[in-house]
Amino acid sequence: MKSLGQKGVVVRTIQRADKKDLVTLAVSGVATVHEAQGRKGLLDPAIRPIQQNKSLAGSAVTVLLAPGDNWMFHVAVEQCRPGDMLVAVPTSPCVDGFFGDLLATSLQARGVVGLIADHGVRDSRTLREMGFGVWSRSVYAQGTVKETLGSVNVPVICAGQLIMPGDTIVADDDGVVVVARADTARIAEKARQREELEESKRARMAAGELGLDIYQMRARLAEKGLRYVETLDDLEE
Amino acid sequence: MKSLGQKGVVVRTIQRADKKDLVTLAVSGVATVHEAQGRKGLLDPAIRPIQQNKSLAGSAVTVLLAPGDNWMFHVAVEQCRPGDMLVAVPTSPCVDGFFGDLLATSLQARGVVGLIADHGVRDSRTLREMGFGVWSRSVYAQGTVKETLGSVNVPVICAGQLIMPGDTIVADDDGVVVVARADTARIAEKARQREELEESKRARMAAGELGLDIYQMRARLAEKGLRYVETLDDLEE
Amino acid sequence: MKSLGQKGVVVRTIQRADKKDLVTLAVSGVATVHEAQGRKGLLDPAIRPIQQNKSLAGSAVTVLLAPGDNWMFHVAVEQCRPGDMLVAVPTSPCVDGFFGDLLATSLQARGVVGLIADHGVRDSRTLREMGFGVWSRSVYAQGTVKETLGSVNVPVICAGQLIMPGDTIVADDDGVVVVARADTARIAEKARQREELEESKRARMAAGELGLDIYQMRARLAEKGLRYVETLDDLEE
Amino acid sequence: MKSLGQKGVVVRTIQRADKKDLVTLAVSGVATVHEAQGRKGLLDPAIRPIQQNKSLAGSAVTVLLAPGDNWMFHVAVEQCRPGDMLVAVPTSPCVDGFFGDLLATSLQARGVVGLIADHGVRDSRTLREMGFGVWSRSVYAQGTVKETLGSVNVPVICAGQLIMPGDTIVADDDGVVVVARADTARIAEKARQREELEESKRARMAAGELGLDIYQMRARLAEKGLRYVETLDDLEE
Amino acid sequence: MKSLGQKGVVVRTIQRADKKDLVTLAVSGVATVHEAQGRKGLLDPAIRPIQQNKSLAGSAVTVLLAPGDNWMFHVAVEQCRPGDMLVAVPTSPCVDGFFGDLLATSLQARGVVGLIADHGVRDSRTLREMGFGVWSRSVYAQGTVKETLGSVNVPVICAGQLIMPGDTIVADDDGVVVVARADTARIAEKARQREELEESKRARMAAGELGLDIYQMRARLAEKGLRYVETLDDLEE
Amino acid sequence: MKSLGQKGVVVRTIQRADKKDLVTLAVSGVATVHEAQGRKGLLDPAIRPIQQNKSLAGSAVTVLLAPGDNWMFHVAVEQCRPGDMLVAVPTSPCVDGFFGDLLATSLQARGVVGLIADHGVRDSRTLREMGFGVWSRSVYAQGTVKETLGSVNVPVICAGQLIMPGDTIVADDDGVVVVARADTARIAEKARQREELEESKRARMAAGELGLDIYQMRARLAEKGLRYVETLDDLEE
Repeated sequence: MKSLGQKGVVVRTIQRADKKDLVTLAVSGVATVHEAQGRKGLLDPAIRPIQQNKSLAGSAVTVLLAPGDNWMFHVAVEQCRPGDMLVAVPTSPCVDGFFGDLLATSLQARGVVGLIADHGVRDSRTLREMGFGVWSRSVYAQGTVKETLGSVNVPVICAGQLIMPGDTIVADDDGVVVVARADTARIAEKARQREELEESKRARMAAGELGLDIYQMRARLAEKGLRYVETLDDLEE
Repeated sequence: MKSLGQKGVVVRTIQRADKKDLVTLAVSGVATVHEAQGRKGLLDPAIRPIQQNKSLAGSAVTVLLAPGDNWMFHVAVEQCRPGDMLVAVPTSPCVDGFFGDLLATSLQARGVVGLIADHGVRDSRTLREMGFGVWSRSVYAQGTVKETLGSVNVPVICAGQLIMPGDTIVADDDGVVVVARADTARIAEKARQREELEESKRARMAAGELGLDIYQMRARLAEKGLRYVETLDDLEE
Repeated sequence: MKSLGQKGVVVRTIQRADKKDLVTLAVSGVATVHEAQGRKGLLDPAIRPIQQNKSLAGSAVTVLLAPGDNWMFHVAVEQCRPGDMLVAVPTSPCVDGFFGDLLATSLQARGVVGLIADHGVRDSRTLREMGFGVWSRSVYAQGTVKETLGSVNVPVICAGQLIMPGDTIVADDDGVVVVARADTARIAEKARQREELEESKRARMAAGELGLDIYQMRARLAEKGLRYVETLDDLEE
Repeated sequence: MKSLGQKGVVVRTIQRADKKDLVTLAVSGVATVHEAQGRKGLLDPAIRPIQQNKSLAGSAVTVLLAPGDNWMFHVAVEQCRPGDMLVAVPTSPCVDGFFGDLLATSLQARGVVGLIADHGVRDSRTLREMGFGVWSRSVYAQGTVKETLGSVNVPVICAGQLIMPGDTIVADDDGVVVVARADTARIAEKARQREELEESKRARMAAGELGLDIYQMRARLAEKGLRYVETLDDLEE
Repeated sequence: MKSLGQKGVVVRTIQRADKKDLVTLAVSGVATVHEAQGRKGLLDPAIRPIQQNKSLAGSAVTVLLAPGDNWMFHVAVEQCRPGDMLVAVPTSPCVDGFFGDLLATSLQARGVVGLIADHGVRDSRTLREMGFGVWSRSVYAQGTVKETLGSVNVPVICAGQLIMPGDTIVADDDGVVVVARADTARIAEKARQREELEESKRARMAAGELGLDIYQMRARLAEKGLRYVETLDDLEE
Repeated sequence: MKSLGQKGVVVRTIQRADKKDLVTLAVSGVATVHEAQGRKGLLDPAIRPIQQNKSLAGSAVTVLLAPGDNWMFHVAVEQCRPGDMLVAVPTSPCVDGFFGDLLATSLQARGVVGLIADHGVRDSRTLREMGFGVWSRSVYAQGTVKETLGSVNVPVICAGQLIMPGDTIVADDDGVVVVARADTARIAEKARQREELEESKRARMAAGELGLDIYQMRARLAEKGLRYVETLDDLEE
């Protein structure tokens, strides 16, 4: 993957997953999608939403930034389409406020649904009021310059995960997960099935049935040696 | 305390504090309860609520978990009664999402009021929508397995505090405090008195009276050598 | 600056900025003010608001505290006037809950608008309900004693910034910035102009115009060597 | 455990484990002892040694301290005997330098082997030169006062573990583990056996034999579904 | 990259860089190699050496681990050759001590030069005494189980960097950098040249010549507006 | 203090403290100096030495840097004299490796004794081998550019402390403390006296005398209510 982290390049054409699969994934949410694809793809838990009650899915347009320099955001805007999600990564750790309400306005005008930022953002209140979804490493008003080239739509590593341009990003109150573009339809179907299955479990549990019985765990627990005693004193004898 | 951290055991019978004292403590809140019992029992401030404006008190049902393994939660559910609060601790530091909305549904069906988790949780938005109170170390969608035994209702150390099964847990926006079961009635009464006392102080302060006068601090401050000067320049002479 | 961090002193008279400039700065918000004064004065991003959607500006009354000792808060209250903002700093790192709803009631009765705390606070829910603005390093119910002298209205270093008594503090969802008292009028005017300028940019961006064109960036990007390619495969040749 | 964290008390008489078992445990080291007692008792990994190549075991004399106040250390010294290890805990989180070379001199004169500090220390270079073993949360020169009572030889929770006066503490480059006094002889014997067993394994491994064969893991791995392929390309087909 | 993070697979055959280039890179060290390849490939600075004065380079054999489970290390040993460097990554954040002296003995017997661990290690003193190089996220004695499959020689993301099996790892007191296998010869040559260049600069600087003159910076600084004043007072006028 | 953090300026002439006082302070060390000046001036404990057993004092030459940009170091070198200590601060948090062995060579050639860096450094092994003292926030090989102006010899806030050019910096294994230039002679004398006093205390303690008696603490402890009991059981009655 020679292009990983390459600087000074803008890739114009990327493949995106099907819109209807993105909708399915946004409804399923991060925890279910993560399970549906075999427990992989989660970004580091240090990436937190700046708002509550928002669940989004979009196609990744990636932006590689120099630390303390947000110039490439402007280049990235032009490459975005409705339904995209911007994924922004500085080339070394930096908590500055690379992103604020003006850039969000420009992205929203192009139909971009949100931002995943492995750095800080500012104007956080306005971003919430605009309904533009943001997941970031920090909130910090420190401004940035426009001096150094980065890249748009090259592969990036964001908060510990490899993200290819066009990959599907799902983000909600639990955090962020990436699904490979080519796997999106398959994982969307799996997530949908999983949701259905959970729904039936939820109904039984709400009615008071125990997971021990629904999942038939008692035998295996006994076999592993689980021991029931009446009181703590029995234990200390 | 030989049973501290013991694995593979479920204790069925624990003593619980009186319900009406739990209500009193929930109304008083964590800061007042902590003061009422002589400034002890606070969990580490890294344990944070995932919701706002919730103040709860319950009797601790403790769960000891293997890292990355949430099997014992299902065993614990069966041991819970209305008014209980689950206290979950992994045997080594782990931020995984051990707990989500299905387990919360099952607990809510049994009348459990909330969860204190020395680890991560997921499905955080649904947990908030359900009104199930959660205080945790992190929010992270990373799933767990069901392979290794832990214990239920053994003494645990949760976020720096020793918690015995049946101890009283009070949790609100300020964090979490534990009160020994046997002290609960006494502390509830003290907290209630303290609240009353504070209420009268609050009224005087709202009317503009100074703490310096209400608490008669001026003499002692002078005695310790507090010096009033007119301006900063006086100071630098 | 011999008085920096000096203990056992209360300075009674400080100069404050003009009220109307404080209003202007509160409306502009932290990110804009920070830019208007040449990108300086931001407090460490570890200082976070305990509420959302609040933007305040006030004149700093400073309080220097011994760790785990909130005695000087009571001394400070008496020195406050309407429109002031308390800035509290312990002499060594301490996350205890130095400040709660009683002190806030007393400050609110004197017209103080908020608190910047380089330490922890408690009674956080009540503070939010009172509408008293708080920015702090932590929320933690751990109480404090009243044994050791500190100072009021001496210069302090709060979360990495030097703050002189009477300096202007601006705080919102993005964090906190300090403006020197003498610079307040000038920076308020600059911030106002900046806001106007941003407003016109925002309108053009909302209409779909690109930052690349509004700021005429294309030539400079090309000159720095930015290269557009059609697909990622072109890149790897 | 009503005495946990009780203030203003000095307990004069504590039971200690047998010296020869302490020697065995010091030789085995923390990782082996932790395994020998069923993987429990480890202090939080934030407690780090300030020196290298030191492995110690001693009987815990516990000291409970007010934050920023090291008065009780002087009280504790008098309660120490040769072979003891001091375990110091502030009642709320505090990184100050509670402990330095003078106190270490006094402890060394009484035969104390080292200090486990859930806070900061200072004079770190001199402590190393004296050969006095220290494991602490931080190194920080910030001084402390002598104003507030704490306790000596009451149960404490240190870095997440309950420690009773007289419990056995083992500390080396890997961190710190606590063994209940009553279990010390039994765990020492188990640790010794474990060391022997490891020694034979080490010899076979040093000779090039694989763990896969020594522990006969191949069948179980195959049964779980482990799949060997020739190249990464085989995988992506 | 469908195989990224895939579980239950062992890839037997990987390509490795040329030994002589590894030697060149180990001599150059991490900072120089990082510059030579255009400032990319550095692992997160949280990965620290457990020893000093060691500079190594090796070919990556990758191990993907379940959290708290070190089973796959034994599988990995068999796939190693002389000159390899093990790169171990858990599938979710975990600070447990997955690795100790027995595994190191086994690896050393096969000629493996060191370990890069995105998790914790134990037996740290013995590892240092053996001369086996280790870079890890933590030192912690907490043991692990052998229950769950992971993989060997699949692509992994370690501390923020994508590492392909066979990639070249360079590690020294400054941290760790990864060089793509195919780039190794080219980067080794560049690093060597860079070292030579630096050597001549170092000689001139040691003789007292200024970087301002060696790099001819004065004109560009003046052009950017750098202003020399005599004293701080001049500045404040 | 309008010049605090001002950019694009080099101040050529600063006042420095007397060399012999610097020597006295270096011998006393950070903890003693900190006490001698009334417990103030300590830098944040996150600033750590990269070497052991080094105790230095020097006059501060300050450097203000743009994040990720080390250009101003070269400008600063020219302003240094024998006995100076460089104090480097980025304008927003940044862990990059701004400083390495070439710059150290240049500084050493001018007689500079060390560096206090509120950022990261690289070439750490070589820096140790050169005997050039470094205290920094991190060790990280990430390189920096030379694009943006900063300043030399303006007031800076470094790790939470205000440092004026020419102030005295003392640094050892415990961390770093700043002493105002004008106070240096007075504090050096106080530190020397304190050292003498401590020496006599140390002798008495090494001979087995207790701090309780040396400092006559017994009466005051009793007065505060300290209670001696024989065993823990007495306590629980």
